[in-house]
Amino acid sequence: MSGNKMIETEKSFFLKDNERVDDLQRNGYRIIQHPDKFCFGMDAVLLSGFATAKRGEQVLDLCTGTGIVPILMEAKTEAAHLTGLEIQEESADMARRSVLLNGLQEKIDIVTGDVRKAGSYFSSAFFDVVTCNPPYMIGRHGLTNPDAPKAIARHEILCTLEEVVSQTAKLLRTGGHFYLVHRPFRLAEIMTTLVRHKLEPKRMRLVYPYVDKEPNMVLIEAVRGGKSRMTVESPLIIFSQRGVYTEEIREKYGF
Amino acid sequence: MSGNKMIETEKSFFLKDNERVDDLQRNGYRIIQHPDKFCFGMDAVLLSGFATAKRGEQVLDLCTGTGIVPILMEAKTEAAHLTGLEIQEESADMARRSVLLNGLQEKIDIVTGDVRKAGSYFSSAFFDVVTCNPPYMIGRHGLTNPDAPKAIARHEILCTLEEVVSQTAKLLRTGGHFYLVHRPFRLAEIMTTLVRHKLEPKRMRLVYPYVDKEPNMVLIEAVRGGKSRMTVESPLIIFSQRGVYTEEIREKYGF
Repeated sequence: MSGNKMIETEKSFFLKDNERVDDLQRNGYRIIQHPDKFCFGMDAVLLSGFATAKRGEQVLDLCTGTGIVPILMEAKTEAAHLTGLEIQEESADMARRSVLLNGLQEKIDIVTGDVRKAGSYFSSAFFDVVTCNPPYMIGRHGLTNPDAPKAIARHEILCTLEEVVSQTAKLLRTGGHFYLVHRPFRLAEIMTTLVRHKLEPKRMRLVYPYVDKEPNMVLIEAVRGGKSRMTVESPLIIFSQRGVYTEEIREKYGF
Repeated sequence: MSGNKMIETEKSFFLKDNERVDDLQRNGYRIIQHPDKFCFGMDAVLLSGFATAKRGEQVLDLCTGTGIVPILMEAKTEAAHLTGLEIQEESADMARRSVLLNGLQEKIDIVTGDVRKAGSYFSSAFFDVVTCNPPYMIGRHGLTNPDAPKAIARHEILCTLEEVVSQTAKLLRTGGHFYLVHRPFRLAEIMTTLVRHKLEPKRMRLVYPYVDKEPNMVLIEAVRGGKSRMTVESPLIIFSQRGVYTEEIREKYGF
């Protein structure tokens, strides 16, 4: 069977209407996405780059969407097992098919479920690492179609920051690490919410599109039960000029 | 009388042993400092650049030291009046003589007093703006001489962050602005302490010595009773290469 034939057979097996397969440029892994619904962004890739997991650890990704974060984390770590939790069945289904497509069914489980009830799906303090790329926007302000998959992924319609953090605090063992990507405009709320749930911010990196612009993302690592003292890292700058990625973005993140 | 003669006469009038006068390159203002005790650093200059006060406002600087912040704020704003509060009499005395040296006795008052009791020295909610460049280091760890002026200026011996913030909350009117310079390793504590006292972080800028290094200062603006949503500004980078200030530092801050 020729390469092209193989691809056609695979497509009919793995893909539904209008879905596409994107190469992740890591371990030959690919991901199934639907361009009209929600495709992963640079935030998920930067979160996976910022997060770490040690050999043998249990990792949970909340709001996993199409599973981009656990798939990239599987590629870069020696974690024992990764679980992705997603409330939208359509996204979870795509994530499950991507796991199969990459032959990772022994390493990654995709669970359809509500992050607000995550603490009841798994044992308390079971996970060593929790990652999350949650909806950034508060409420449903300005939304014409709050049931649309993109709206649910971007707006706090089905979960709030408070809910993500409180469930993470239940699921993470003492000393376990939480990795979050979010928007800088909510930084004070993020810090106070983490601290209130005894997830102490220990490391932070701001992502600036250009060296002279405001940051549009913040990466935060918190440790459950950690002491109050943190490292703010060097600025992560995306573009050196319009359309030209910085060396770090090209070399570390593969853009 | 020649210029030199003038300077000599002035020196004998204003200066005590081993003190020196430094030109601030703003409005011809100068400041009296003692090189063996504590000289102002770039943090005070950056704080004055970050802070603003509107025409006619009342401004208070806590932990004012030799008065650098109110003198620079007088130069750049149309504030009605500025008060500097300092616990060390020797520093307060230098600050008072600097105020006289610059002819600012109608605009700036230097009060000797304890920041922990600041709320009892002034009327509640009297100030529109509070600035502070407090001691950064926690406790007196590693100090051999905790009574030395430098130790008191750098370590939380005579006041803690909690005390500075709680007194600021008493003294600032609702909607008034608090400007703080501090160290990034305490960012989570700074945010939670501000929010607990209803001083909502609204603007933050991280100061990076070089574009690829960790920040060593953070500038924060909080508003008493403000809503939870903030702006993180572009990175403030000090050096473009070893010994060469960036354009912003040269042009905006006059280094």
